[in-house]
Amino acid sequence: MISTDAATEGNEAAALLKCARNLVDPQLRSAVESLPGSIRRVAMYHFGWEHADGSAAGGQAGKAIRPALVLAATRAVGGDPERAVRAAAAVELVHNFSLLHDDVIDEDRTRRHRPTAWTVFGVPAAVIAGDAMLSLAHRLLAEDTRPASARASARLAGCVIELCAGQQADCSFEERGPDEVSLDECLAMATAKTGALLGCACALGALYAGVEERAVGAMDGFGREAGLAFQLIDDLIGIWGDPMQTGKPVGADLAAHKKSLPVVAALTSRTPAAAELAGLYRGSMNTPDEVSRAADAVDRAGGRDWAQACAGDRMARAVHHLSRAVPDLTAAGDLLALAEFVTRRTH
Amino acid sequence: MISTDAATEGNEAAALLKCARNLVDPQLRSAVESLPGSIRRVAMYHFGWEHADGSAAGGQAGKAIRPALVLAATRAVGGDPERAVRAAAAVELVHNFSLLHDDVIDEDRTRRHRPTAWTVFGVPAAVIAGDAMLSLAHRLLAEDTRPASARASARLAGCVIELCAGQQADCSFEERGPDEVSLDECLAMATAKTGALLGCACALGALYAGVEERAVGAMDGFGREAGLAFQLIDDLIGIWGDPMQTGKPVGADLAAHKKSLPVVAALTSRTPAAAELAGLYRGSMNTPDEVSRAADAVDRAGGRDWAQACAGDRMARAVHHLSRAVPDLTAAGDLLALAEFVTRRTH
Repeated sequence: MISTDAATEGNEAAALLKCARNLVDPQLRSAVESLPGSIRRVAMYHFGWEHADGSAAGGQAGKAIRPALVLAATRAVGGDPERAVRAAAAVELVHNFSLLHDDVIDEDRTRRHRPTAWTVFGVPAAVIAGDAMLSLAHRLLAEDTRPASARASARLAGCVIELCAGQQADCSFEERGPDEVSLDECLAMATAKTGALLGCACALGALYAGVEERAVGAMDGFGREAGLAFQLIDDLIGIWGDPMQTGKPVGADLAAHKKSLPVVAALTSRTPAAAELAGLYRGSMNTPDEVSRAADAVDRAGGRDWAQACAGDRMARAVHHLSRAVPDLTAAGDLLALAEFVTRRTH
Repeated sequence: MISTDAATEGNEAAALLKCARNLVDPQLRSAVESLPGSIRRVAMYHFGWEHADGSAAGGQAGKAIRPALVLAATRAVGGDPERAVRAAAAVELVHNFSLLHDDVIDEDRTRRHRPTAWTVFGVPAAVIAGDAMLSLAHRLLAEDTRPASARASARLAGCVIELCAGQQADCSFEERGPDEVSLDECLAMATAKTGALLGCACALGALYAGVEERAVGAMDGFGREAGLAFQLIDDLIGIWGDPMQTGKPVGADLAAHKKSLPVVAALTSRTPAAAELAGLYRGSMNTPDEVSRAADAVDRAGGRDWAQACAGDRMARAVHHLSRAVPDLTAAGDLLALAEFVTRRTH
């Protein structure tokens, strides 16, 4: 059912992502280009389509995982992906709205190998451009005459509220001590911050195929669990990943004292390494040596293994949800290839 | 047609605002109370329903001008205002989303006689709560089964993009020299920042009455022009108004070097007072004496008279638009009373 040939799957997923980009980018780009002048410039920069000076850039707007999930979900339940292109563009706009605002809130300075928008255009311009991109997403859905659009819009709005709650929780974690965040809280935060939008992407895809609410909900569950698996892998990359691939410096999450999932799993492990990690988290952790020791402590405390096992468990749950929406999983090959791809990025 | 008895009109408008609040507040409040915990707290504080510590407060959520306009517009074109309550709550949420973000962006510390939300909860929490309130507005419309809701959602989204452009222009004006902003640019900014949402309020009211697109557009025009008149009066209050009434310190807009409409009219007047004002705007203007001299220079340069005359002119244009949507203006008594009220607040 799920191929174990990672190379083949990677190729399959890469082809799906490219195909999604080709289908969705024209809609996405024409929506962004419809924004008023000064806002458009920030958005075009953020998407990698323009340099800071407004000249054309060939960059790609992220990996297009969410639009690809929308289209694959439509196909999995027997719909025509062409019908869901607008929804896919809306989901990608929401994702990028949240990146713009999160970068401001987290004071992150690098995104997709480039300075973040707020460092180039200022905090006000980045906040405003995010607001406009969120509204653009809703306008895309509202102007869609297909019967699914109102339910899609309601789901997307509810999802953004969940994203906001996740981001708020993430911020509150940073103000708390290293042993004051439970693993359950951390999982709930990641579900809201990452799972919700991947779930929404899959749900919108199903909605645009016109299937019944039960299947839409099951698709949401699939995306949510796959999203959590994705976040676990992303957190591992945030500690041990390759900065050439991620565009973020190694150990950035540790240096920023982020209470990511492997870190909280390690901190709550009641091991000697947990105490060592807590000590490092209470300090400034501003030298490469300290960051490296923290990464090692997460590993020795079992945070790394736990995250990888948990990612596998979440993928199993995802497939279980999927089987409720798509009884014959062979129809959901694209969805599974995408989910496997995003949860195997470290290999 | 338009009564000249300001006292009666004020009473009539006050009754309409109270009635709108009674109709819309339950919907608005239940929507805000549906937000996740930490976000709800920021929103409840911003609306004046809770103190910073989470205890209940009796404050009112602003003047409810926009919800009242939605309901009055529905009635003016022969619809039942009860049908537009959800749209009225959505418009009020959008208004408050923009206040939350604008206060962050402009670093304003006082709103409705209280410390602004970001000063109490921090910038991240205020940005996040604004995002959630904007999404809540769209969810309210998307969950509405009335046929007008999709068009309402599209209009509201377009309006927010216009608001964003207005806020972005406002920010860019502050970075420019005192003689580098034209009156036309300033009028366009105010139209986007204030007129658009008042226009949208009236248009949504008409949409929910089920009238044709031409009448919806005319209602938008009415609200837009009335909104510009409202902004002109608001700008006058920002210079000469009573801080007990406005909740903002006198001359705050001058001390903040705001290029408001009366100021730009004065700066571009080619009078000796214009040069004096430009000199003050180039300086720090951080003493009450300098602020007072700037206010006097705006007056002598004709900025005060111009703003009052322009407000009158815009109201006349508003009524002209209205007559296209409502041929017998006696049906639009509520709308006219509200418009007159907001443009006569200095009297």
